[in-house]
Amino acid sequence: MSSQYGDYLKVSIFGQSHSASIGVVIDNFPSGIHIDQSALEAFMTRRAPGNASYATTRKEQDRVIFLSGLVDDVTCGAPICAIIENTNVRSGDYSNLYDIPRPSHADYSAQQKFHGFQDVRGGGHFSGRLTAPLCIAGALCQQLLVHHGIHIGAHIASIGTVKDDAFDPVMVSETELVKIHTSTFPVINENAGAQMLDIIAKAKADTDSVGGCIECAIIGVPAGAGNPIFDGIENKIAKIVFGIPAVKGLEFGNGFQAASLFGSENNDPFYIAADGQVRTATNNHGGILGGITSGMPIIFRTAIKPTPSIGKEQDSISLSKQTAEKLVIHGRHDPCIVPRAVPCMEAAAAIAIADILLSDRLL
Amino acid sequence: MSSQYGDYLKVSIFGQSHSASIGVVIDNFPSGIHIDQSALEAFMTRRAPGNASYATTRKEQDRVIFLSGLVDDVTCGAPICAIIENTNVRSGDYSNLYDIPRPSHADYSAQQKFHGFQDVRGGGHFSGRLTAPLCIAGALCQQLLVHHGIHIGAHIASIGTVKDDAFDPVMVSETELVKIHTSTFPVINENAGAQMLDIIAKAKADTDSVGGCIECAIIGVPAGAGNPIFDGIENKIAKIVFGIPAVKGLEFGNGFQAASLFGSENNDPFYIAADGQVRTATNNHGGILGGITSGMPIIFRTAIKPTPSIGKEQDSISLSKQTAEKLVIHGRHDPCIVPRAVPCMEAAAAIAIADILLSDRLL
Amino acid sequence: MSSQYGDYLKVSIFGQSHSASIGVVIDNFPSGIHIDQSALEAFMTRRAPGNASYATTRKEQDRVIFLSGLVDDVTCGAPICAIIENTNVRSGDYSNLYDIPRPSHADYSAQQKFHGFQDVRGGGHFSGRLTAPLCIAGALCQQLLVHHGIHIGAHIASIGTVKDDAFDPVMVSETELVKIHTSTFPVINENAGAQMLDIIAKAKADTDSVGGCIECAIIGVPAGAGNPIFDGIENKIAKIVFGIPAVKGLEFGNGFQAASLFGSENNDPFYIAADGQVRTATNNHGGILGGITSGMPIIFRTAIKPTPSIGKEQDSISLSKQTAEKLVIHGRHDPCIVPRAVPCMEAAAAIAIADILLSDRLL
Amino acid sequence: MSSQYGDYLKVSIFGQSHSASIGVVIDNFPSGIHIDQSALEAFMTRRAPGNASYATTRKEQDRVIFLSGLVDDVTCGAPICAIIENTNVRSGDYSNLYDIPRPSHADYSAQQKFHGFQDVRGGGHFSGRLTAPLCIAGALCQQLLVHHGIHIGAHIASIGTVKDDAFDPVMVSETELVKIHTSTFPVINENAGAQMLDIIAKAKADTDSVGGCIECAIIGVPAGAGNPIFDGIENKIAKIVFGIPAVKGLEFGNGFQAASLFGSENNDPFYIAADGQVRTATNNHGGILGGITSGMPIIFRTAIKPTPSIGKEQDSISLSKQTAEKLVIHGRHDPCIVPRAVPCMEAAAAIAIADILLSDRLL
Repeated sequence: MSSQYGDYLKVSIFGQSHSASIGVVIDNFPSGIHIDQSALEAFMTRRAPGNASYATTRKEQDRVIFLSGLVDDVTCGAPICAIIENTNVRSGDYSNLYDIPRPSHADYSAQQKFHGFQDVRGGGHFSGRLTAPLCIAGALCQQLLVHHGIHIGAHIASIGTVKDDAFDPVMVSETELVKIHTSTFPVINENAGAQMLDIIAKAKADTDSVGGCIECAIIGVPAGAGNPIFDGIENKIAKIVFGIPAVKGLEFGNGFQAASLFGSENNDPFYIAADGQVRTATNNHGGILGGITSGMPIIFRTAIKPTPSIGKEQDSISLSKQTAEKLVIHGRHDPCIVPRAVPCMEAAAAIAIADILLSDRLL
Repeated sequence: MSSQYGDYLKVSIFGQSHSASIGVVIDNFPSGIHIDQSALEAFMTRRAPGNASYATTRKEQDRVIFLSGLVDDVTCGAPICAIIENTNVRSGDYSNLYDIPRPSHADYSAQQKFHGFQDVRGGGHFSGRLTAPLCIAGALCQQLLVHHGIHIGAHIASIGTVKDDAFDPVMVSETELVKIHTSTFPVINENAGAQMLDIIAKAKADTDSVGGCIECAIIGVPAGAGNPIFDGIENKIAKIVFGIPAVKGLEFGNGFQAASLFGSENNDPFYIAADGQVRTATNNHGGILGGITSGMPIIFRTAIKPTPSIGKEQDSISLSKQTAEKLVIHGRHDPCIVPRAVPCMEAAAAIAIADILLSDRLL
Repeated sequence: MSSQYGDYLKVSIFGQSHSASIGVVIDNFPSGIHIDQSALEAFMTRRAPGNASYATTRKEQDRVIFLSGLVDDVTCGAPICAIIENTNVRSGDYSNLYDIPRPSHADYSAQQKFHGFQDVRGGGHFSGRLTAPLCIAGALCQQLLVHHGIHIGAHIASIGTVKDDAFDPVMVSETELVKIHTSTFPVINENAGAQMLDIIAKAKADTDSVGGCIECAIIGVPAGAGNPIFDGIENKIAKIVFGIPAVKGLEFGNGFQAASLFGSENNDPFYIAADGQVRTATNNHGGILGGITSGMPIIFRTAIKPTPSIGKEQDSISLSKQTAEKLVIHGRHDPCIVPRAVPCMEAAAAIAIADILLSDRLL
Repeated sequence: MSSQYGDYLKVSIFGQSHSASIGVVIDNFPSGIHIDQSALEAFMTRRAPGNASYATTRKEQDRVIFLSGLVDDVTCGAPICAIIENTNVRSGDYSNLYDIPRPSHADYSAQQKFHGFQDVRGGGHFSGRLTAPLCIAGALCQQLLVHHGIHIGAHIASIGTVKDDAFDPVMVSETELVKIHTSTFPVINENAGAQMLDIIAKAKADTDSVGGCIECAIIGVPAGAGNPIFDGIENKIAKIVFGIPAVKGLEFGNGFQAASLFGSENNDPFYIAADGQVRTATNNHGGILGGITSGMPIIFRTAIKPTPSIGKEQDSISLSKQTAEKLVIHGRHDPCIVPRAVPCMEAAAAIAIADILLSDRLL
């Protein structure tokens, strides 16, 4: 049991919110790949809190420092270690977390697991900040995948009860995915986006938070990648996606909707496209059949719960006194982490797909 | 990449629908555990097609034969190998599957992966029949867990658009879970069950199929099991649950619903129960915080797509001729696999939880 | 911790000496490989006790039965499960092993690990009989490797104090390796072989046993396979070779002799061969530099301790009574297992090399 | 395939000789362990080149910096990342290594594996310098083991043809092992040590190098740890020990000598010691039976080849010109790495034993 992912490509994440650094070791990444540092920086900026209204006012300078694995920005085959130094931390905010666990945070469960030795400062190893090293690994994998014509993009599918349009699961294009990468608030439907920002503003004004969904598309993956049973595309994506804090649900293709359909409605008929490619007319299967890619776009959606850090008074307990306690959480927090989780979802997808395709000799 | 699961407990599934046998190797199972063969048989019977109206008329005699790992029905610490011999197979039904892939089956994707060498008879290694060895392993794990006061039960949450009642995520009890094990059609609300059977009958009459959802509860797991990031409870359950054919979605706690809520609605306040235990007043988190158990019931739901094997004429292609083809699938098939998937979901949960608790020294 | 080996190719061994069957699951073996059953049988015969003077008089009918993974003797990509049924067992011989551990056997250490639940009949999961499934996997891997021009052969390097000639580490040839496969007593120097048989006969007459060494050569492996640090060729071979019971030492190239040399004596100068290949004039490095193949023959030697099962009276203890006890082991045993361990060493090498080359995309 | 070790405890090494840093991630190390920084520093100093006559004159300031995993020097359960910054490097020494491979170095094999992208500066990821992060992990594991009464020590068993005395495999004591930790030239027999220093001085004067053997003892490990077949104590120690550059041989207990003995000579009779403990009168088995500890001292020996970096002119080739070339290696090198490999061997043993005992719930 560990903070490691991958069968061929090994991604090992370390760090706590307030440790000296957070970082990642990426082992078995192919040699000879030029890393575009400015593209990496651009990717990291998408996750960084910046000045957006929906994000924390903490400044996180997510400057990536490579400790190993590169020679003149080209991978040399040795494990890549990249870190981000933790510089802007306020240590005084979190002092009573050992005793009064925050509702729906990991404080209590971590206390039980680590017997009180866990690092609680800023959430420790459970902090959303640990998605930064995930994004480093994901950005590198995405650079690798793009060389092979594979593109990944995600957007906010919903915030609260406001829904964005969905990707067209059959026609979603590289242009569309690339465009979304450059958006400061990645939605397809601008009107929906405006309403989402309103909900977030309301949550912020109420010192509350709000959840949402993310939809992710992966295009260009050849048919025949993946495995039956435990190492299928779904299993591999699931194992990493649930590594992003606050993810509570995951579905592929039409997902939960498929459960309410008849087979004759849900089945995706095959046809030979004009270019001679085998395709399906619909894509309810989300690009995966029997754990193996069909060549159609891979589509998945995740549910992100509202950040449990809210400013409202909540009921909790004192573990030492075994009494009921009222809790008010101070400090700076995101009223909605969904926008910042969008690149994390892409990163997770990129790592999973790179691992699968490297295992299957398709990269 | 393999048909293996587990970090501490290693479960390795083998077999094809029409190979000599299907089976499982279970490695690192604790020694000294008495295996109750009649309880195992009862568990296997829940998955077996039997004579139920919603199931295939194929007879599968799922008699479990232990090749190794037991001495007088007690585990000896050596790997357990258990098989089921394949006896009742009709080999003539599947001859054209190499050329004309069935929509939404693994035929095409497997063809691409295995270059035409895959065993297509009865679905080969992709067959739902491979859930039988999963159930062997799951039944053994469930026997192990029960010794430690951990109980697992699942029910049909929906068929088509008909929904069963949900487990009470706070109060779900051993009595309730045990009762459901003995049901031939495992639902909480009998009226909903009757409507579900109607929908299945309709699908069968139409030579169609229908999907559904399953809800699973695990109670008695102590707080503090699991891990942050990649080896959390969600990740581990997800990796195995998506190994069950036709699963397209998975959610924990209130899952996708959480995404539409505010934090103040979704957070679960802690309190000290009358017995001195730390509990939460609600259980939107589904028993898992930061990848680690909170001591509350673990709740998850899965979406099962309708079986792609339907009798209606469908559009497909000839891979050899690169032409459009009409396809009618003959043979005996389940109009709805959801009822038979219920024990599979319990089996998957039992394996995942046993693996986690053994890793964490809590078994 | 398990009876599994391999990073890409997963080999999982199960069974006890007296369980219903012993066997192996081989996962991720390439699809489309025709398995030559008679070659497999020939390989298994080399390990089988047969009628040789140096072997046990037990009859082990090592007939391999494939339960899965093949369609008409061609691998289909699904996990291969192959078993050997245990038929000729005398159960009465081993009754007091729970109480009076045999010196230098696993009886006592297994008792401590498995708390008295281990299967002691015939050595249980510790039995040399478990090398039969290893040989199944090895024979399949060897068939795969031969298609790629890779040949493996081993011979008895010594029995007691009698030494065979060594392979020429630079010039060892396919002809030489193939020839050794067909020998009933695999040595290079026939005179040495005759003396070895005398020592074995002496040990047998004395109801004693005798140890020996095995040398193994692998030719045709391209340069560039393997890894630095923990997943090098040596590490991978070591991990599997020490899985063969009674192996107590392992060395690569000139091994322990290298430790007594100066660098100027031990270094292997490079040269360009007539065919343009990079070669070394000597091969003290045994074909491995920095954990990675150099293209030269891979050479390793193992030390096999004398079988601890001897007929002479020995000092032991009663675990229950905590008293000293005299022990005389009855039953049929090999006076020298080294000849039968020769194909096991080849099998281990074949599995390790196949796993490495598959990982490195060189098969 | 990766630079990672361990089943329960995951040790992941990164860095190249001339990258910004070298380091290690240690995952799943128990929480709540106080790390003694001065003991760690003392351990690192044993490996550091310092001013000893037998070592390189390079200054390596092996100051360990913890990036994560500790709170006030106490492990918090999150992955530990520790690095050493590379400060004192001369980059000009290694320029022609891409073209003219050094005999018996990894230059050629790495070139083949990494297609010319490998970092050759100072040996890159193949450098002996990578044993520094191994020592960090080993020192931490040793601190953990000492809390449980387990002690590890190693000494130089031979340099060239000069042999040290051996540990008494039955009686080797904590006092003896601790004493050796503080020696600047760790031998048992001071006279042998003096002769070894003479041989090293001679090798240095000749711009040559010399090999040697190391013997390592581990005491205090309870009986019953380890596994049959592939995850035994020998397999686990072998997998890590062969990760130390230049190791070409490994033997347990009496090792290769066992191969020349009769069973009646080699077997170790059991007896009940005065304190009621089960012990063996001799310890030819080196504390391991059937892959599982017997409770007796674990003893192993490794063969270290002479450093391939020598100042004498050697035959090599130009890869680009495909011609024979004379090579003279300049730069600062150890005439004998055996003394500095002694703590590395202890570190490897400590990691392996910690991993096994944590897996087996014995720590």
